[in-house]
Amino acid sequence: MTDRIKAFVPGPRAHIPGKPGGPLSGLTFAVKDLFDVAGVPTGGGNHDWARANPVPERHAWAVQVLLDAGAELVGKTITDEVSLGILGESAFDGTPLNSAAPDRVPGGSSSGSAAAVAARQCDTALGTDTGGSMRVPGSFCGLYSIRPTHGRLDLTGLMPQAPSSDTAGWFARDARTFARVGTVMLGEAPGPLPTKLLVAVDAFGFADQDVAAALRPMVERLARVLGATPREELMAPQGLSVWARAQRSLQPVEAWQTFKPWIERHNPRMAFSVAAGLIAGSQITAGERNWAALMREEARARLRYLLPPGTILCLPTTPFPAPLRGLPMPALQPMRDRITCLCAQGGLAGHPQVNLPGATVGDAPVGLSIIGARGNDASLIAVAQALEDAA
Amino acid sequence: MTDRIKAFVPGPRAHIPGKPGGPLSGLTFAVKDLFDVAGVPTGGGNHDWARANPVPERHAWAVQVLLDAGAELVGKTITDEVSLGILGESAFDGTPLNSAAPDRVPGGSSSGSAAAVAARQCDTALGTDTGGSMRVPGSFCGLYSIRPTHGRLDLTGLMPQAPSSDTAGWFARDARTFARVGTVMLGEAPGPLPTKLLVAVDAFGFADQDVAAALRPMVERLARVLGATPREELMAPQGLSVWARAQRSLQPVEAWQTFKPWIERHNPRMAFSVAAGLIAGSQITAGERNWAALMREEARARLRYLLPPGTILCLPTTPFPAPLRGLPMPALQPMRDRITCLCAQGGLAGHPQVNLPGATVGDAPVGLSIIGARGNDASLIAVAQALEDAA
Repeated sequence: MTDRIKAFVPGPRAHIPGKPGGPLSGLTFAVKDLFDVAGVPTGGGNHDWARANPVPERHAWAVQVLLDAGAELVGKTITDEVSLGILGESAFDGTPLNSAAPDRVPGGSSSGSAAAVAARQCDTALGTDTGGSMRVPGSFCGLYSIRPTHGRLDLTGLMPQAPSSDTAGWFARDARTFARVGTVMLGEAPGPLPTKLLVAVDAFGFADQDVAAALRPMVERLARVLGATPREELMAPQGLSVWARAQRSLQPVEAWQTFKPWIERHNPRMAFSVAAGLIAGSQITAGERNWAALMREEARARLRYLLPPGTILCLPTTPFPAPLRGLPMPALQPMRDRITCLCAQGGLAGHPQVNLPGATVGDAPVGLSIIGARGNDASLIAVAQALEDAA
Repeated sequence: MTDRIKAFVPGPRAHIPGKPGGPLSGLTFAVKDLFDVAGVPTGGGNHDWARANPVPERHAWAVQVLLDAGAELVGKTITDEVSLGILGESAFDGTPLNSAAPDRVPGGSSSGSAAAVAARQCDTALGTDTGGSMRVPGSFCGLYSIRPTHGRLDLTGLMPQAPSSDTAGWFARDARTFARVGTVMLGEAPGPLPTKLLVAVDAFGFADQDVAAALRPMVERLARVLGATPREELMAPQGLSVWARAQRSLQPVEAWQTFKPWIERHNPRMAFSVAAGLIAGSQITAGERNWAALMREEARARLRYLLPPGTILCLPTTPFPAPLRGLPMPALQPMRDRITCLCAQGGLAGHPQVNLPGATVGDAPVGLSIIGARGNDASLIAVAQALEDAA
């Protein structure tokens, strides 16, 4: 069973009991293999990574927080290679099962954490999100997931990718567990509920029409729960594809800077697609980077303008449900590019975003995202809980 | 012992006795893991290659020829990944031992075949040469090696790389064995001896000065054996670096075309440097390729002019002896580039070239190359034998 699910990294499972009597007592959690667990090599999804890096002596901040709160660690989970991947297919450890749609990919790069929670191997699981790695598997596997405000959580002990966009988050199957973990991670109880609801009309227009149609009832339910009249707005007046281009000119450059010393020293094996992405990052011109940095400022200004505290914006998390497993590379790149058009705002602007499960297209889940003001993570969690309670 | 040598691919050794009573009876041979051996997966130096390709049902032409002549196959040898590498360091199977200089690389991509012969694990071994893969390990390990005239040998059952430059050759420790194998492979006895000797003054000038100095006595010996007065000539009046650039604009484009379908279907793991080379090949412009094709014509014209039958040209096979093992990537690329300046003529013009061992710099071997008229492979082998007999 576990082997079929393929959520955990191969080998003996990391296992650490939580402190007795904490607020998360009775919960089990797994952790993406980018987070340090003391005494366990951090694999990073690439078999040549652990070899080149020392075994950590301390837990990552997020792992320590969950253990201190009483949650029990039950294993480390498969990740897309060095967190570079959005679909969850790993050339090294295989593709974790998407229990909600077994013939489809789980989404990545937090693929194993999503798979473990979806298959009830644990109650919650830590992952990361630089360009969509919490949000996309949340949407594809039908889970609650959060990309917190950039800078809100301590990332100590987490393998970096693109530091100006990196965040750490968690998955859950139900809003109550999602909120319990959130209270501990954020150090803040859920709330307050927002009162204004914006609908990102450009993002809905960009998603597949059946995805937009499947999410509409969720938007209506959300409006009822908040007692708000939805207002349509362009999220990205400059263009979703323009925001995506800016993110694609910033994130891979940082990723290249992060991994270059390791690559130059060790010439590691990588899936061709991952190497190609890093090389693309190394070739981005200074002129393009400079433009992208300015467009990032525009994106930040736009979301700051749209999202004062008390207002949230909703959009399809992904433009389509999970693609089939095992498609060839030329079919995948256009999908990654379309996903980035809906996810780029996270890395660009750093606002908190939560994926709400609840819709399907065909037999596959697809999620609705809500984005709030920077720092208003607990409000988004309150929305998740209120929406589930109202169901 | 064998494990330390690391010449053979891991796993059970391919072993096939030769036909009794043939001209190569009593000789053992190994074969680079790019040649098909019936019933044995062709590994190609990349662990994701065999998975994507059927187990061959027939021997490669060269393997069949050696078996039919009575030689005994004793194993398949490690190769640089999909033959893309010149130094012999493999991220998948490790770096074969250079018995002649154990702290140094063996040279590649026919690294395991050279290592096996150098360590007396077999008498001869098949390899390939597209951009230097027979010549460089011959020079670094102190072995006889040949890059035959392009098109002379049947390459059926050999994994291609850049077909307009691909060739198959063999290694030996002594000229007699080298010639015995040559007689079978070429279907022609050694000879006749050339009567004119050219010295590639640009190539000698380009090599490290201690390499040029170490090879000078070999050139003098060669002149005595042939009864010839050496004449200095520019091999590449347009520039060794210009010829290298042309080859670098032709070979990687063909390599990309060769491996693209596999890569796009399977997204295989590759050493970063190999992926980077293929991506560079995919990015070469049509204008650059068109220029390179014209420069190839000029290189062909130049060698045709310099090398009528009966004349040979000598040059250092490599500009330096084998580099140390385990150097970081940024140190390696300039070395690869310098090697290409001396090796590019092989792929560009397709003339036969033999590496003659016999010189050392410090404790490391370095070889003298002789190049002849197209089709005059047997003359070069005769020179090897005459030189050794005269020693």
